[in-house]
Amino acid sequence: MGQAGCKGLYQSLFDYKTEKYVIAKNKKVGLLYRLLQVSILTYLVVWVFLVKKCYQDTDTSLQSSIITKVKGVTFTNTSELGERLWDVADYVIPPQGENVFFVITNLVVTPNQRQETCAESESIPDALCYEDSDCPPGEPVVAGNGVRTGRCLRAGSEQKGTCEIFAWCPVETKSRPAKPLLGEAEDFTVYIRNFIRFPKFNFSKTNVLDTTDRAFLKSCKFGPKDPYCPIFRLGSVVSWTGSSFQEIAVQGGVIGIQIEWDCDLDRAPSECYPRYYFNRLDNRFSENSLSSGYNFRFAKYYRDAAGVELRTLFKAYGIRFDVMVNGKAGKFNIIPTVINVGSGVALMGVVTSRDRGHLQTSLSYDGGKSEHRHLGTHW
Amino acid sequence: MGQAGCKGLYQSLFDYKTEKYVIAKNKKVGLLYRLLQVSILTYLVVWVFLVKKCYQDTDTSLQSSIITKVKGVTFTNTSELGERLWDVADYVIPPQGENVFFVITNLVVTPNQRQETCAESESIPDALCYEDSDCPPGEPVVAGNGVRTGRCLRAGSEQKGTCEIFAWCPVETKSRPAKPLLGEAEDFTVYIRNFIRFPKFNFSKTNVLDTTDRAFLKSCKFGPKDPYCPIFRLGSVVSWTGSSFQEIAVQGGVIGIQIEWDCDLDRAPSECYPRYYFNRLDNRFSENSLSSGYNFRFAKYYRDAAGVELRTLFKAYGIRFDVMVNGKAGKFNIIPTVINVGSGVALMGVVTSRDRGHLQTSLSYDGGKSEHRHLGTHW
Amino acid sequence: MGQAGCKGLYQSLFDYKTEKYVIAKNKKVGLLYRLLQVSILTYLVVWVFLVKKCYQDTDTSLQSSIITKVKGVTFTNTSELGERLWDVADYVIPPQGENVFFVITNLVVTPNQRQETCAESESIPDALCYEDSDCPPGEPVVAGNGVRTGRCLRAGSEQKGTCEIFAWCPVETKSRPAKPLLGEAEDFTVYIRNFIRFPKFNFSKTNVLDTTDRAFLKSCKFGPKDPYCPIFRLGSVVSWTGSSFQEIAVQGGVIGIQIEWDCDLDRAPSECYPRYYFNRLDNRFSENSLSSGYNFRFAKYYRDAAGVELRTLFKAYGIRFDVMVNGKAGKFNIIPTVINVGSGVALMGVVTSRDRGHLQTSLSYDGGKSEHRHLGTHW
Repeated sequence: MGQAGCKGLYQSLFDYKTEKYVIAKNKKVGLLYRLLQVSILTYLVVWVFLVKKCYQDTDTSLQSSIITKVKGVTFTNTSELGERLWDVADYVIPPQGENVFFVITNLVVTPNQRQETCAESESIPDALCYEDSDCPPGEPVVAGNGVRTGRCLRAGSEQKGTCEIFAWCPVETKSRPAKPLLGEAEDFTVYIRNFIRFPKFNFSKTNVLDTTDRAFLKSCKFGPKDPYCPIFRLGSVVSWTGSSFQEIAVQGGVIGIQIEWDCDLDRAPSECYPRYYFNRLDNRFSENSLSSGYNFRFAKYYRDAAGVELRTLFKAYGIRFDVMVNGKAGKFNIIPTVINVGSGVALMGVVTSRDRGHLQTSLSYDGGKSEHRHLGTHW
Repeated sequence: MGQAGCKGLYQSLFDYKTEKYVIAKNKKVGLLYRLLQVSILTYLVVWVFLVKKCYQDTDTSLQSSIITKVKGVTFTNTSELGERLWDVADYVIPPQGENVFFVITNLVVTPNQRQETCAESESIPDALCYEDSDCPPGEPVVAGNGVRTGRCLRAGSEQKGTCEIFAWCPVETKSRPAKPLLGEAEDFTVYIRNFIRFPKFNFSKTNVLDTTDRAFLKSCKFGPKDPYCPIFRLGSVVSWTGSSFQEIAVQGGVIGIQIEWDCDLDRAPSECYPRYYFNRLDNRFSENSLSSGYNFRFAKYYRDAAGVELRTLFKAYGIRFDVMVNGKAGKFNIIPTVINVGSGVALMGVVTSRDRGHLQTSLSYDGGKSEHRHLGTHW
Repeated sequence: MGQAGCKGLYQSLFDYKTEKYVIAKNKKVGLLYRLLQVSILTYLVVWVFLVKKCYQDTDTSLQSSIITKVKGVTFTNTSELGERLWDVADYVIPPQGENVFFVITNLVVTPNQRQETCAESESIPDALCYEDSDCPPGEPVVAGNGVRTGRCLRAGSEQKGTCEIFAWCPVETKSRPAKPLLGEAEDFTVYIRNFIRFPKFNFSKTNVLDTTDRAFLKSCKFGPKDPYCPIFRLGSVVSWTGSSFQEIAVQGGVIGIQIEWDCDLDRAPSECYPRYYFNRLDNRFSENSLSSGYNFRFAKYYRDAAGVELRTLFKAYGIRFDVMVNGKAGKFNIIPTVINVGSGVALMGVVTSRDRGHLQTSLSYDGGKSEHRHLGTHW
């Protein structure tokens, strides 16, 4: 009996179940049924395969490196600095040419600051005083430039004065020039070199055309006419974001330069090229002075003949450019193709079989019209 | 016959197959069947639609820009530097106010270094020597400060000495102060301005409330009471990560400030606001001195009256703050809704039809109880 | 009748439909059917569960911080700078030890530049002139160093000269040394400390072994023998990318160091360790001089005894190292397990049920062989 059971199991292993079907001949329902199949097939072919390219393996873990190089010089003549020429080493911070760089467009300079005592700026509310007891010694001025020494400095016979502080003196008192000092930075250019690599496909490319025409790169400017030239005029970049360079130059701002690579590696490598997008990345419409513009302070440190340290403080307004890269690449691969075709077929099966179910429900009310082939010749 | 074949094909195009069903009336099995349907429906509605919000199109390619500005001054009085006031231009590196900034909290200063010869530091094992032949000229000291000149410098009548080196002399020999020099940095504040943009929905926002109350931004501090104030006290930020500021100030560390935007753009824009998370991003619990703390060396270069270059070397310990932004936005869109409803319905169909199959298997053993409506009136 | 309707509805609520099946006994078709089931089961188990680990909840929002520290000194003897020792504070830019750092390997130095007038470099085409009218005063030289003063400077009796400019004079005229000045940077080492945290699982780790053997970290070098040592020799890093250090040192380049964490948190934490990948991230094969190498200009500013500013301009060639971290962690979670098992079962159901449909089509032509158990004993 054990053998018989085994044999029975062995036989039943190759049994299979199959459903019983009714072939219904009803034009209306049949049409609906075919329409449904066509629409699912269309979805599969158009959306899944043509639009979403689900037959491709994709790589989104882009490796990218950016090298930037600004070019241009400008000349200024101010009372603090005298005649002065500005070149790249002067106005680009940091100098390394990474993906984020800042170009000074406006300046407040406070030269020859030394560590000593002086009067705090009058624009700082916390420094106002009437007598020495208003200036507790050793306490820093809130939002100020130094620590109080304990004296209240009053000019002449005035009642109100400001605390004396120990600080880098004299303190910064001038306000932002209304006209940008380096407004000519509009004509500076920046050369952006972007190298990308898709590690999964071991595919790499740069945004610089590997042309033999070296003169092209020396003279071209990026624009609608030259979409493959990697040299950008700063003024144009700002204008493409919808802003005015002279306006943004006064109080500073942040501009995003986005490079997007969307590569179909089933095509020729030359069809994988970058697209550039320009956006202003600070709140241009804000009326709140604290939340608009972009500036920071830095200093250059010197020593005088006696070896005492002094510095020149710069409050630099300017434009920060953030170059961002993103991208993806796709290439035909058998695994996603099989999985997507499979699940597409499955979806088709489910939906049509589902719908057959629903159709049947409605059918049951006009069942008499349909021919029960099953009972007849089919089996 | 060609015409007849065509007609047959045309007719059969609108045929459709439908399965034969048995309607079983069994309360237990029926209940199970309904329960299954209800649980799938619950999964679809609660998980797919309410929790995962699959009816929305999402944008995760956030564009973001960060501007940071530290405020605060502090006064120190040390033997090397004398009385000195530290302001933002002195202690924030780099000065640009980007998303990563470093605040000096402790310092080892080695002033007036010049390019000349001197004895290597005794703490470097490779520099120890007994005679001149231990110091091969021209060879750099491993993990040391310069190249050997060939002489072994022994103080007085001692046997053991250190090689003479050509380097920036005198070399750095002092060790880290046990008490942070700029411990008062705890009270410094940082203003973090974050501007974000979701390009797919052309939606942009900042973390700074566009309030008309300018005094609010001048006086507020971020905290449980003021979750919308973008001004952070450094000491509080460190304490929220579970660390002690005075402890981290001694040997340095890295603090992560994470800004998270999770915006449902089907709601009002004012409900899209950032959440802040603070974490310590260096290995606080390590006992290994090499893998704890954060410090780096930098130098300020001067020229003396004779035009010879000299420098002051700083070994700066401090806290690096990394501001990171991530986020996503969702908005109702018809395509994902249709796809998800469709696949939900499909899933429901499959699982219930599958289960019908399994149910049937168990049914076949009590088949007699079920009413074969099919054979009767239904068709 | 309302009550009767209700009762009918209540009863029909627990009805369920079940398809009628035919059990066919045909070895070929049955074998095909089982094969299909086995292959789907294999796909589910091997691909979905073992390879893709779909039973795990994953966290890809890695928090990471990088601290880098370069070590090494080198000695140079050139005509401009004389004998000079270079240490970390001299050749690493920026000094902070972040994830991107640059090591100078070659230099063009232009010392003692002052703001005055001099002849523009002859290598700039736009500066060539025959007479003063070729040099319109106040106009900057395109791709040049300053603004024209209006004079054309001709050496001796030559016809051709260059415009006089107001600039940082003398202008940079020397070209890149053919042999890298700091070629010995090949032996410098960099210590890379990487701390990561997966916020979803609150799991953190560093790439530095928390060993009690402190000497290990003082002496080890990363390599095939020491894959857990976080100290990298610069020359080895470059050679692992397939480049020659001395070659890249001449005109500069960008090297990517990728740290990848792929952690299965269902295993022991010690099995979660980083893997390192090294790639050259600039276009090494380009013949175009504009798109190869990496260099930038920076300046050190001094004041002479009279308080006049002067600067030393450096054109630095070197290697930029970009340390990039990515990773993901997975941990068993009941929700993705249930969803994936569920959809796997569903897929199996659909495909086998679909195929039953197709099998049946082919079956209908040899229907006579199959036993119609349905009509007999089964029901």
